[in-house]
Amino acid sequence: MSLLLLAATGQPTPKSSPPAEADIKHLLTAQVEAWNKGDLEGFMAGYWHSPDLTFFSGTTVTKGWEPTLERYRQRYKGEGKEMGKLEFLELNVDPLDNKTAVVTGKWLLTMSDGKKPGGLFTLILKRMPEGWRIVHDHTSGG
Amino acid sequence: MSLLLLAATGQPTPKSSPPAEADIKHLLTAQVEAWNKGDLEGFMAGYWHSPDLTFFSGTTVTKGWEPTLERYRQRYKGEGKEMGKLEFLELNVDPLDNKTAVVTGKWLLTMSDGKKPGGLFTLILKRMPEGWRIVHDHTSGG
Repeated sequence: MSLLLLAATGQPTPKSSPPAEADIKHLLTAQVEAWNKGDLEGFMAGYWHSPDLTFFSGTTVTKGWEPTLERYRQRYKGEGKEMGKLEFLELNVDPLDNKTAVVTGKWLLTMSDGKKPGGLFTLILKRMPEGWRIVHDHTSGG
Repeated sequence: MSLLLLAATGQPTPKSSPPAEADIKHLLTAQVEAWNKGDLEGFMAGYWHSPDLTFFSGTTVTKGWEPTLERYRQRYKGEGKEMGKLEFLELNVDPLDNKTAVVTGKWLLTMSDGKKPGGLFTLILKRMPEGWRIVHDHTSGG
């Protein structure tokens, strides 16, 4: 929608519209719930289903939705692996405009042996026709 | 500036205006040049001079410009430390709008003993009255 059209309708969505923040928090909550049911595909539904999705972890760049799912499968669904219980902490949602947001936070896994790997993430989300989706994920720690 | 004003002037800056990208690349180049002269304060000039600057590295959150400078000092200027020669590779600048951009890339240091620590970064930049500044840095690797 062009600026002129927005001006014509007279109803541009406010810059930091609460709906954007609420929608994004809902998406992240749905991801955590899916993870904690062992549903990796459900977790991945929060990511942009595109070959242009970028996933940065440590020193590794993964490009595309399918390779990102495969990376998660190998790390958490392989022989002797487990997904653990996921939590997102200290979430900060910054809706930059009507269609882009930055989310930062901490991730924490609790494994069955009591180990708690965790770290930080920075997400870039864009509002797609299908809803908000993560288009870039930078995660660190472990 | 409101959308209505933009529509009235008829001259909104294009979403992906080359000046934004050029300005940001200039800022990053200036950072690399400062680093390679051993000028940490010059390097830090690219960061928002605010207690709200956030710097994520591995599992550690550093908040504020001064603490971020201090972190760099301890890692690269301390006893027996060196800054090495810095390069930024595979830079991708995504100007989201006139006042916010996401930059991703790889960082590579070449140390005097030939070691080459490196990794990935995701930067959020905002256009301040004083120019583009990094407001959030997530770096990983090492």
